[in-house]
Amino acid sequence: MLQKCGIINDIEKTEIINGLNKLLDEIENGKSIENAEDIHSFVENELTKSIGKSGEKLHTARSRNDQVALDFRMYIRDRIDALKHTLIELITVIIKHSEQNLETYMTGFTHLQHAQPTTLAHYLMAYANMFERDIDRLTDCKKRVNVLPLGSCAMATTTLPIDRETVKTLLGFDNVCENSIDGVSDRDFAVEYLAVLSLIMTHLSRMSEELILWSTTEFKFCEISDKFSTGSSIMPQKKNADMLELIRGKTGRVNYWINRLIDYFERFTACLQ
Amino acid sequence: MLQKCGIINDIEKTEIINGLNKLLDEIENGKSIENAEDIHSFVENELTKSIGKSGEKLHTARSRNDQVALDFRMYIRDRIDALKHTLIELITVIIKHSEQNLETYMTGFTHLQHAQPTTLAHYLMAYANMFERDIDRLTDCKKRVNVLPLGSCAMATTTLPIDRETVKTLLGFDNVCENSIDGVSDRDFAVEYLAVLSLIMTHLSRMSEELILWSTTEFKFCEISDKFSTGSSIMPQKKNADMLELIRGKTGRVNYWINRLIDYFERFTACLQ
Amino acid sequence: MLQKCGIINDIEKTEIINGLNKLLDEIENGKSIENAEDIHSFVENELTKSIGKSGEKLHTARSRNDQVALDFRMYIRDRIDALKHTLIELITVIIKHSEQNLETYMTGFTHLQHAQPTTLAHYLMAYANMFERDIDRLTDCKKRVNVLPLGSCAMATTTLPIDRETVKTLLGFDNVCENSIDGVSDRDFAVEYLAVLSLIMTHLSRMSEELILWSTTEFKFCEISDKFSTGSSIMPQKKNADMLELIRGKTGRVNYWINRLIDYFERFTACLQ
Amino acid sequence: MLQKCGIINDIEKTEIINGLNKLLDEIENGKSIENAEDIHSFVENELTKSIGKSGEKLHTARSRNDQVALDFRMYIRDRIDALKHTLIELITVIIKHSEQNLETYMTGFTHLQHAQPTTLAHYLMAYANMFERDIDRLTDCKKRVNVLPLGSCAMATTTLPIDRETVKTLLGFDNVCENSIDGVSDRDFAVEYLAVLSLIMTHLSRMSEELILWSTTEFKFCEISDKFSTGSSIMPQKKNADMLELIRGKTGRVNYWINRLIDYFERFTACLQ
Repeated sequence: MLQKCGIINDIEKTEIINGLNKLLDEIENGKSIENAEDIHSFVENELTKSIGKSGEKLHTARSRNDQVALDFRMYIRDRIDALKHTLIELITVIIKHSEQNLETYMTGFTHLQHAQPTTLAHYLMAYANMFERDIDRLTDCKKRVNVLPLGSCAMATTTLPIDRETVKTLLGFDNVCENSIDGVSDRDFAVEYLAVLSLIMTHLSRMSEELILWSTTEFKFCEISDKFSTGSSIMPQKKNADMLELIRGKTGRVNYWINRLIDYFERFTACLQ
Repeated sequence: MLQKCGIINDIEKTEIINGLNKLLDEIENGKSIENAEDIHSFVENELTKSIGKSGEKLHTARSRNDQVALDFRMYIRDRIDALKHTLIELITVIIKHSEQNLETYMTGFTHLQHAQPTTLAHYLMAYANMFERDIDRLTDCKKRVNVLPLGSCAMATTTLPIDRETVKTLLGFDNVCENSIDGVSDRDFAVEYLAVLSLIMTHLSRMSEELILWSTTEFKFCEISDKFSTGSSIMPQKKNADMLELIRGKTGRVNYWINRLIDYFERFTACLQ
Repeated sequence: MLQKCGIINDIEKTEIINGLNKLLDEIENGKSIENAEDIHSFVENELTKSIGKSGEKLHTARSRNDQVALDFRMYIRDRIDALKHTLIELITVIIKHSEQNLETYMTGFTHLQHAQPTTLAHYLMAYANMFERDIDRLTDCKKRVNVLPLGSCAMATTTLPIDRETVKTLLGFDNVCENSIDGVSDRDFAVEYLAVLSLIMTHLSRMSEELILWSTTEFKFCEISDKFSTGSSIMPQKKNADMLELIRGKTGRVNYWINRLIDYFERFTACLQ
Repeated sequence: MLQKCGIINDIEKTEIINGLNKLLDEIENGKSIENAEDIHSFVENELTKSIGKSGEKLHTARSRNDQVALDFRMYIRDRIDALKHTLIELITVIIKHSEQNLETYMTGFTHLQHAQPTTLAHYLMAYANMFERDIDRLTDCKKRVNVLPLGSCAMATTTLPIDRETVKTLLGFDNVCENSIDGVSDRDFAVEYLAVLSLIMTHLSRMSEELILWSTTEFKFCEISDKFSTGSSIMPQKKNADMLELIRGKTGRVNYWINRLIDYFERFTACLQ
């Protein structure tokens, strides 16, 4: 974009792009970035060492303020896409088990007391609905994440004749920030993302709690696969639902735990008939 | 709907509607509901006292479980609409002040240190953007609030031939819950609403903090109208920005405080030029 | 104290004390305080109306700032004492049931799986230990609550020759605040008190969760007294442990719920032998 | 203790101790523990590999359940001691600056508005009081941390004739857990410790916020040493109080930030006189 707007020339553009690709290679092959003040200074310094004066132009019409905001948004955008993908897999597994258990009758509970008869499919599909809502929330959240802050600079934009629409398209954003003070300071998108994650974890936790209960000697609605239980040296008869307890307890690493839950269902044996 | 589906007859329908209207009148004229177990039992008992046996049919194909979920959703739906309306008023006031201060120059700060020159309009419009995002979030949230849980009954639906689509239309819902276990137990919509409120309050708090700072003797960027400041018997020279401190401190009563902030701006005097 | 230090004279002292006692009587007999700015202005205004010029001296060497801090500390101090008293009652009930169940054998669980045999007494006494620690925490917290902030005034103390030690003794405090800026702004004691309450509620919640589980058809370790369960019009066989669910869900009104739990134990029937 | 009680013999004791010391050496010299299930299994397995059958006796009269509780308590106990030490250093620095500024007059603020004249020493000593209360809270917390859970085993103690008092003394504990179910499940001490940390961080945050404000061009009460400020390539005039902002923002790594604050004060220049 800087070259297209006449801010840097063609030679500088080519030098910068080649220099950045070379640096990327070096980092991927183990070059350490540990002692740098931050990643932005590191990249600029290394580039300048490598290609000379053109390297200093990398930073043109940018500030660490809008670059940090940019990186943060791109990171969360990618995480949302990955998470939606994993949730769809989990829903698929739940639907598969529901289809296999359309006639597996079980007690329906309210207040943890026997209430009305129902089926395992009915129970499991309630979770499918919850995770579908989670996907909707992620989609809504992404609309507000995927907005380009670049061009805000330190807070008061730049006097250089930049073209934000081109940058937006190149980096795959849906919109550009309207106000540069808001552009550098807004972190709402991250808070909103965390709020969506909290609800997902609440659903995972509720499902795990239910499966733990169903796996007790008293309830015996399902049996834990050996793959997902640990024993005890003192008490050899035990099958602890450790993994489900960990899911119930963890609030981070959502993606990882959804994948564990998918595995769990692959080995799920209903003891009902 | 119960009459349309042949579950109650025409006479029962008319008696119930008239009875409910009469009861509403009585409550609005001061009838106490204090000693009832809950509002649902109260209405049913009073109705039966008033119109006899037809009153007992009010509850047909319903359970407290889905009725509570229904009321909760209708309440939040109304709150969202009211809140969006108030936020639009606040944005309107901010835009008005911004238009009047397009050339009111002020220091732009980063890290609370002088950074780059900018205008009051630029600063204020950052907040307009934040509140616009809040409205978007409320709109997204409402999609998941405005789903009809009625028909879920205790958790396992009903065997009566009810028509949920008619109820959906009559009560102004966009969708019906797909799974009755999810229908009675889902409270995600309330958590999501509270998360949106938290971000709104964060924005109000940030704006208040900034205005408090601008109102200090040291900054003197604006002056607090007497209407919004309190004094002190010991220190007669003081003008405390109590209202802004309260906004900064409160997390409830969002609507009320947005209205106070609108009032505040009506009496806002910029000391910059 | 004001009279003892020669700041007001004997007649003023007597007028103020009589006037305050008269006002207290009036408030206890229904005098409304609703339209006052705050309780401090209300009392001063009413007193001055009632006894004349001496009333204005009530406020001498005081500010709303240190008065609010004072009231807050006295309120929490009283709540701590009441709460300790109720916890001791709960522990007494737990010990009584433990003594009656020294030989009531039950399954000991870890990970909600059968682990090792134990007794009901062993289980119950674990809770007695938790509540004893809660009492210790309340006692430690009170040391920091029971410190007199009066004399700090707005923030910079007073030039009047007051005697804080006398006020400390009269109002039953253990210490006086050393620094007046800290004296008017410190609210740590309230945060600490809330942290202790949170742990108490965690214990109540854990106990309730366990009792809910023990009351299920599957576990059948104990039976809920009719006094503490509600039924359902659709499902007449049900006994819902509503009260325990409420305890588990509530974080406020600690004292109230501890008393309900004491009642619960009075009607607790172990189904083990 | 196991040898003293006759559970293992003298030779086994010597072999275990020597084996453990050797293993410690190896770990300190880089032996990896990464692929073990947990540290307890790792130590037992390595020990058995190294010294043979005696190694299996290490675990006698212990369970992972009480060992995890033990380690957790010992870790927090050490953290509390380290934190108290650092807080005392911070208070010492504050007192030193207060002594040097007994006559440094400054504006006293309430509601961020000029209230009454006071001194810098008065302001700073308010923080000394806050940190002293924090030390008191840590001391109280430690009483409940420093209780020995060992001997609880999985949850139902052991039938072996162990001597908990000896273990208590050897490991420097003040008390032993009374109930073994409570012994393995109690984590209150960690919650309480975190609550105390939160208050400390609130105090650090409040102090940092105040120093940031005092360092602005508008207030100019103090000047940030170059050591603690960063600049900006676009705005060379800037001195950002990054470190204070980081303290205000961080809730972890308390000890580290207290040390930074001590450094800060070493280079603190009051601009008042």
